[in-house]
Amino acid sequence: MSQNLGLAPGVTGPSRHAQNATGKQIRVESLPQATVAIIGLGLMGGSLAGALRGKCKTVLGIARRKEAVQKALELALIDRGTSSLKEGVREADVVVLAIPVRAIINQLPVIAALLPDGCLLMDLGSTKANIVEVMANLPPNIQVLGAHPMCGKEKSGIEVAEPALYQGRTFILSPLARTSEKALALGQQLARAVGASPLVIEAARQDYLTAAVSHLPYMLACALVKTCDATVSNDPLIWKIVAGGFRDTSRVAGSDVTMMLDILLTNRGEIVNAMTECAAHLQQLAQLVAESDEEKLDRVLTKIRETRREMFP
Amino acid sequence: MSQNLGLAPGVTGPSRHAQNATGKQIRVESLPQATVAIIGLGLMGGSLAGALRGKCKTVLGIARRKEAVQKALELALIDRGTSSLKEGVREADVVVLAIPVRAIINQLPVIAALLPDGCLLMDLGSTKANIVEVMANLPPNIQVLGAHPMCGKEKSGIEVAEPALYQGRTFILSPLARTSEKALALGQQLARAVGASPLVIEAARQDYLTAAVSHLPYMLACALVKTCDATVSNDPLIWKIVAGGFRDTSRVAGSDVTMMLDILLTNRGEIVNAMTECAAHLQQLAQLVAESDEEKLDRVLTKIRETRREMFP
Repeated sequence: MSQNLGLAPGVTGPSRHAQNATGKQIRVESLPQATVAIIGLGLMGGSLAGALRGKCKTVLGIARRKEAVQKALELALIDRGTSSLKEGVREADVVVLAIPVRAIINQLPVIAALLPDGCLLMDLGSTKANIVEVMANLPPNIQVLGAHPMCGKEKSGIEVAEPALYQGRTFILSPLARTSEKALALGQQLARAVGASPLVIEAARQDYLTAAVSHLPYMLACALVKTCDATVSNDPLIWKIVAGGFRDTSRVAGSDVTMMLDILLTNRGEIVNAMTECAAHLQQLAQLVAESDEEKLDRVLTKIRETRREMFP
Repeated sequence: MSQNLGLAPGVTGPSRHAQNATGKQIRVESLPQATVAIIGLGLMGGSLAGALRGKCKTVLGIARRKEAVQKALELALIDRGTSSLKEGVREADVVVLAIPVRAIINQLPVIAALLPDGCLLMDLGSTKANIVEVMANLPPNIQVLGAHPMCGKEKSGIEVAEPALYQGRTFILSPLARTSEKALALGQQLARAVGASPLVIEAARQDYLTAAVSHLPYMLACALVKTCDATVSNDPLIWKIVAGGFRDTSRVAGSDVTMMLDILLTNRGEIVNAMTECAAHLQQLAQLVAESDEEKLDRVLTKIRETRREMFP
């Protein structure tokens, strides 16, 4: 295919791409015509695959573990599957990386080198700044688009995958300066095809916002579980009196640790800021309780309640 | 009825009760024979009433606001209703106070003076130490029993009452030294009748435990909402990217403020301790993220995840 792009014979590897002047092209413009390869068949990848089946030409599942590929076939989440990265992406029009953030960062250059010209390379990583930084430097013969669907479960793995996972959720897309309009449009088609609402947000801004509304809740849930573990958990009655408030507030503490470590370590600055801010608010609230400052507590808690109700009417 | 108890004629008011040597007696031993008066027809009282209908002789609803009584009748949550406290409790075998904690503390002596001998006086307040302290000093002609059903909603009022609210929940009972076995047994019957599991816990111990598993989650949810309000809420995109993690972690921040203020101010010591401990854990976690201490983060977060999974398998 490199012949079609007018490349000098013998030019291979990254330098070949660097000389490619066709970075604005894309293999297919319409999702129904596209062969979509999904790399990583866990909760996110498996669910995306299942949701895309029938909405594009072929859904191809790629996972290192043969058992995951087998399971995805059994669950009818993919049309075809393979454990060979090279073979899987060779003919792909769209490739979606559904693996942990730091695996995405490491694998992007490897995978990019295997892609056909004009292929759209996307990811589903929860943090975007570090990922688009790597994407920016990938060979220009491919299209790149950061993505972050706002959904998940506290359980992970292909066994809990379900095509409805993306339904009604926001699907963040973080295009780069090099991302063509057609590539972004194809990404938006993909988001809509799985029932989600695409929302374009620049990578740094998405990392700032998700630190507060997604990563901070995880850390709070962890701090809550740790506090109970360190204090009341010795009391044999404690688990009998746990009510819905604790269950809901602590739910995300059950999230996959590998995934969360990647998020924490690739969005450190924003997350530490959000945690520090939140710890200060917690201590201010504790101070008001300690002082029995009922009037101020009433005002503050009422405002918080109203804010929560505006968020979720 | 005082004649039956062998009281000297003309002895009335608290002194009458103080001389009453029949504190161990109870009007009825079996719930199906009991007239149960529920004071306060909000979420908790209305739901309890509805769940008790048909399980006892009569469910009598008492609320200051006539509209609440009317609504409870319309919703078929009570057999009869009144806005007159005196009239409502006069013939009651069991009286349940389903009002905020500090209203309970204030109303206990007033209501106790209106009750027939051997009546069982219970409450549903979320903190118990202050309440049982007042209960301990009530006239001895009645039975007293602290209670705290572990359920609720972030919405309040009779409109959201539902008889299934108590189903499958733990119903804490905090008997006093003066509470007779038969009175405790009647309280247990009541808890089971609404589908809950009675659990006997001494008041101070229940306050220590609930501070960690119930009141702390509320304060964390509030701190989370406040943090987002103080930082990212100016961004118009923020509410489009809020996912399930934030919704669940912040849910209890929508709790009724009057109820929560009462809880916070009647369990101050335990709550401030739990918040201080939790803020320290949050800062330790932030420190690990700031230092990119992946090995330790992995160990700590994995342990937390396992603990959460043991709690909610």
